Amino acid sequence: MLRLVPTILLPIVSLTPALAQGPNAGLPPLPLDEDTYVFDTAEAGRVRVVVVTRELENPWSLAFLPDGAMLVTERPGRLRILRDGVLDPEPIAGLTDVYTGGGGGLLEVALDPGFAENERIYWTYTKELPDDDHTAALARGRLQGTTLVDVEEIFEARTGVGGPPAGAPILFGPDGMLYMGVGGANDDIAQRTDNHQGKILRLTGDGEPGPDNPFIGQAAHLPEIFTYGHRNMLGLALHPETGAVWENENGPQGGDEVNVLEPGANYGWPIVSFGREYAGPRVSERTFAEGMVGPVVVWVPSIAASGMTFYTGDAFPEWQGNLLVGGLQFGRIPGTGQLHRIVFNENWEEIRREALLMELRQRIRNVEQGPDGRVYLVTDEDDGAVLRIEPE
Amino acid sequence: MLRLVPTILLPIVSLTPALAQGPNAGLPPLPLDEDTYVFDTAEAGRVRVVVVTRELENPWSLAFLPDGAMLVTERPGRLRILRDGVLDPEPIAGLTDVYTGGGGGLLEVALDPGFAENERIYWTYTKELPDDDHTAALARGRLQGTTLVDVEEIFEARTGVGGPPAGAPILFGPDGMLYMGVGGANDDIAQRTDNHQGKILRLTGDGEPGPDNPFIGQAAHLPEIFTYGHRNMLGLALHPETGAVWENENGPQGGDEVNVLEPGANYGWPIVSFGREYAGPRVSERTFAEGMVGPVVVWVPSIAASGMTFYTGDAFPEWQGNLLVGGLQFGRIPGTGQLHRIVFNENWEEIRREALLMELRQRIRNVEQGPDGRVYLVTDEDDGAVLRIEPE
Repeated sequence: MLRLVPTILLPIVSLTPALAQGPNAGLPPLPLDEDTYVFDTAEAGRVRVVVVTRELENPWSLAFLPDGAMLVTERPGRLRILRDGVLDPEPIAGLTDVYTGGGGGLLEVALDPGFAENERIYWTYTKELPDDDHTAALARGRLQGTTLVDVEEIFEARTGVGGPPAGAPILFGPDGMLYMGVGGANDDIAQRTDNHQGKILRLTGDGEPGPDNPFIGQAAHLPEIFTYGHRNMLGLALHPETGAVWENENGPQGGDEVNVLEPGANYGWPIVSFGREYAGPRVSERTFAEGMVGPVVVWVPSIAASGMTFYTGDAFPEWQGNLLVGGLQFGRIPGTGQLHRIVFNENWEEIRREALLMELRQRIRNVEQGPDGRVYLVTDEDDGAVLRIEPE
Repeated sequence: MLRLVPTILLPIVSLTPALAQGPNAGLPPLPLDEDTYVFDTAEAGRVRVVVVTRELENPWSLAFLPDGAMLVTERPGRLRILRDGVLDPEPIAGLTDVYTGGGGGLLEVALDPGFAENERIYWTYTKELPDDDHTAALARGRLQGTTLVDVEEIFEARTGVGGPPAGAPILFGPDGMLYMGVGGANDDIAQRTDNHQGKILRLTGDGEPGPDNPFIGQAAHLPEIFTYGHRNMLGLALHPETGAVWENENGPQGGDEVNVLEPGANYGWPIVSFGREYAGPRVSERTFAEGMVGPVVVWVPSIAASGMTFYTGDAFPEWQGNLLVGGLQFGRIPGTGQLHRIVFNENWEEIRREALLMELRQRIRNVEQGPDGRVYLVTDEDDGAVLRIEPE
């Protein structure tokens, strides 16, 4: 929990005439008008939040280039670049077409581990299919200045007919493989391995199944699948010590989870869940079951867990080894986004959790550690921002 | 989530010299120096929080007299009275002796349903026993002006040897019976019915077992027990429609619960739990089990759920039917108390949850609806307050 300091107070929102708020109205919007905000934290003293830019439209993901520049995706289908904290007014040229209806759009961006040599970046996005269907797709290209060349779609997820998968996080593992989550599994499609929805996939840099994937050679299962039984994944993070890939996913109402991925494992959705359906009934009477792997972190109620990263920098020594997880909203109430900091013991079991930045009322969509050890966020808002957290 | 308005801004806490905060240091304390605070809420517009008094020492419980005066317990063993919002400088005379070591003290206060005729009030407290043992006890007396007469201890809980039970909430049900929780069951003592720890008891106004209690006449079970398998209960509330008694209890790290009490039922602690031990490992791989009743509301992480009440007043029509639950701290981080508002569907299943008042950084210990339909809180702080929430 943090606190505002008077000199940088959040502006008053006009509430005249009196709001006639219906159910689930949420908190009134709060523009990020100040350049900096200062908060108390529980273990890192006071921190300053700097608004690096507020000129983005629903930014979704960010990635740092080796030279310190920052790539940011905008859900409406633009890839942007910031150099020295200044947003280039022109989007990167040459991106794939992106379907932007129904909450879909340009989603994640990640650098090839060999970027310094091959200039290659990867991105995921919503793709329109015939018959009003949609899916998640993966593309790559080489970034030359502000232009993408050699652009090619290298993978298209096989999903059920329905709305577009809301999340498609990607991450290169220490094994050089590209892990990709395909979300949007609101029903038991997540338990069937003849499709990619509600699965974490493990792909080569060419978009092919990892050659040693757990279901390779088993006809009933798609070869790209690494894990299954997920619901709607919005974050992947590499564990700094074990090298394991950690994943998070949204429950419906409660039951957001962080999981540690193990090849071929079933994470249980919707057979087991800590959450409730939006209408109220429990998803399941069970939260664990034989043959299914349980989560290491759970939220009840939900924070709409989003991007996440392990903090390993020097700017906040007190936070080293902590998992930072963005949240779009708390308890199904709009206007209540926050950043959670999760502290673990030596066995990587949770021992406490701090909620940060809720005073800003922003949908915290992604969190990354910068090359400077500071923490960078993007906010999924119409007037979306890049925020930087640094010691005061 | 709420927001401060500049004119009533919280004061700056001195942070010079720089804080050297260790693990779990918590947020710096924040005195309630202003007379009022105004916040946005998600569904009730803006609300004003009025500091009725800030001159209490660790207030724990409050109860309204028919004439509108308010009784407040202080954990150090004093019963106080406020009339027209003014704290009588003299405590009520004639209270029982109270053991105040180790977090114990004077705990809850409740009026006899026949108070208007019999002037009777009931209170719970920590009682010292031989051999450095302690327990929870129940007493009653008649309140005449500012003096208690005919004071008598009418029940003493049979607990295991150990620290004093941290909670002992009491509530008169629509059946005229007095429900009393005896907490502090950190181990499997809660599953054994030869003691009162981790149990909800059902007593007559004389402190005797309810004559139709579920274990009456069964020699292996104590006759006062109504339900068992609880951990550390801090709140009881009467459901405004069903007349059922709802109870809440603290998990260790995660796993705070609200339960609906059914005679003779087992609520599962520590066989099932949504929480983790303080050191990190899960309490159990199971959250539900055959023959045990599961919670209707869960918190992961914990808020240290405390007093609670169903809101039924006219001051906040948007909150009618909601459950208001105080929280002492969030995620095991000191300085993060808050008030949660839980919204249910027509089957009394949760559909959303709002966190309120966290900017005040107070340990919200109890919440009651006043006869004026406004919401009253006490804060478990050295400089403890009575707060009133009203429309702006």
